[in-house]
Formats: sequence, structure tokens, C-alpha cells
Amino acid sequence: MEKKELKPNTALMPVPVTLVSAIDEEGRPNIITLAWVGIVASVPPQISISIRESRFSHGLIMKSKEFVLNIPGIDLLRKTDICGSVSGRDVQKFEEYNFTALEATKVKAPLIKECPINMECKVSETLELGSHTMFVAEILALHADEEILTDGKIDPAKAKPIAYAPHDYWNMKEKIGTYGFSMKSKS
Amino acid sequence: MEKKELKPNTALMPVPVTLVSAIDEEGRPNIITLAWVGIVASVPPQISISIRESRFSHGLIMKSKEFVLNIPGIDLLRKTDICGSVSGRDVQKFEEYNFTALEATKVKAPLIKECPINMECKVSETLELGSHTMFVAEILALHADEEILTDGKIDPAKAKPIAYAPHDYWNMKEKIGTYGFSMKSKS
Repeated sequence: MEKKELKPNTALMPVPVTLVSAIDEEGRPNIITLAWVGIVASVPPQISISIRESRFSHGLIMKSKEFVLNIPGIDLLRKTDICGSVSGRDVQKFEEYNFTALEATKVKAPLIKECPINMECKVSETLELGSHTMFVAEILALHADEEILTDGKIDPAKAKPIAYAPHDYWNMKEKIGTYGFSMKSKS
Repeated sequence: MEKKELKPNTALMPVPVTLVSAIDEEGRPNIITLAWVGIVASVPPQISISIRESRFSHGLIMKSKEFVLNIPGIDLLRKTDICGSVSGRDVQKFEEYNFTALEATKVKAPLIKECPINMECKVSETLELGSHTMFVAEILALHADEEILTDGKIDPAKAKPIAYAPHDYWNMKEKIGTYGFSMKSKS
């Protein structure tokens, strides 16, 4: 098997597909679809999101320093794709695409009710990284639809999150192992 | 549908499963399995990886400021799980698990030949975030097995990366859309 050298690009896969909600100074909410997102620490739980400066939500989060990271299920794929293709400067996305804004407990930005997982986040660090600004944020509150829980915990098989491997969306249908399984059996 | 508030945790899903190779001062390579990894900028292409200070690879990367981010296919699931469960202080993972070290072009850490995608990375920023140190790094070189390319580009359907939704591994079997599809059809 031969290795081929390609022009460097963001070939990391899969990455999560998320809908990030943020508000302007008048409290009007917007939604942006983001996949340049990752977990960056466990205690306290922290994530990073990266946004191009030209995007409408970039300015909202630079000012408010907070947002809600919502994880859509595959039933929201079409709306999720749309929210990544149109600008909040042109469209009121909550109204136009029938998303419901729910009041958050720790931040002013709203949860997206239709997304089964919602994380209220407060920005702690901002890094300028060329094309994108990276916002590091702490997860202050976590909400989930009761129907995606199993024994009180979020169940990915019920949440049905969307995976992204540029430039395609994938579903997650088959569990193939659990962390630590290799230490429990040799077969 | 009711929302339930849970204790905040890193509920982002799915996240990528990667094998990160790094070397010590004598050039001996180690491998660590990481899922707290994400894309943070497109131009120049940059990713972040987060590692607990207690892990052996943390010290290696703090000193060398470079690593290779390798993406295993699902055929490497068992070895990938093992590399996340044992320490490089106790085990020479390349030898013990029959991984092949290939010389990189831009960094001293080796590529893992058995992984179909390999990104040579140089650390640009280090942030202490509680439980983990986040390393922001630029992708200096990208390699892929010829057999996972379609029209010269990495094909996720051939690379078969592993997705993680704590604490389970999932495969990606079904493509459900392509970025921008919602703007092309209304059906």
C-alpha cells in the first residue's frame, strides 16, 4: 500500500454537526451550523467552536461571549444544512425554519427546542487562527430531551447525531465497541 | 417532549478517534489514542488536540511541540482501543502492537503506516484548560493511502474512520447528504 502526499487540508473525520444559537444586543437570536467544533477538556467540561470573521454569528459571540451548542438529530438534517448556507443578516432563522427558542438557565442565548441535546456555553478564551476565530467555552448547563435518555444518560442511539466528513453528512447506525473493550477480551 | 437538565459534561457527539504519534528526546516514538480533537481553522489548516497532564504523550508533545495525527480505519479498532488504555511508560506500542513507523517529511515524529490518513502537525499554541492541555497545531503535511482516494481526494467511505460518542465507538456506514444539498432541492 502506497502513501500519497496531498496538499494539507482539514482531513480530520468525522467531526460533529452542531447548531449554535447566539443573540445580538437586542436579544434577537440567530443560528449557525458549525462542524469545526471539538471537546477540549473534561473538567470543567469545555468545548471549542471556530467561526469565520465574516459570519454574522461571529460578531454576536464576540460581543456576548456566550452561546448555546445544540446537537441536531438526523431528522433535522435539511434544516441544519440550510442554516449553514444562509446568513442571519438576511433571514430570521428561528422563524423562517420553525425552530423554537427555549429560555436557557445560565446564558441569554436560547436553546433550540427541536435539538435533543443543548449545552449552554460561556466563552473563556478567543484565539485568532487565520481564517477562523476559535472560541474556547465552558459548558455551564446541559439539557437533553427525556426521550433520548437511557438510565438517565444521553443515549447516542436515540439522539441520532449527524457526523460530517467533508463535505458529506453521515449517520451513526452501528455501535462497534465500547471504550476499554480490548482490555476485557482477547478475541 | 420534555427537556431534562443534566450535570454538565462533554456531551458533544460524534467526535473523531485518532492515534497521535510523538517522540521523546531520544527519538523513541509513542502512540496515544485521542478523541478530544477538532478542526479549529481552515486556512492555514489547523486542529486542536487535548491531553491530560498525567499522560506520557503530554510531556513528549510539550517538549517536541510536534506530533502526527493519524486516523485509524475500523479495522484498527482493537489496537486503537488498546493504545488508549495502556501507557507508553510501560509499553513500546509500535513494537507491541505491530504498528509500522514511517518517516515524516516535516516533523520528527513518525507516521503510523497502518492508518490511512496521516497529518504532520506543529504546535503553535498551548492552553491550560483544567483537566487537559489543549495544543493548537498547524497541519504541515498530509498523507493518505492511495487506496482510500477517489479522484485524488480522501474518500471517507474508503477510509472508514471511527466515530466516538462517549463511551462507545461507532462506524460510519451511510451517507445521508452533501453540504449545500438543501439549497439545490426543496423535496
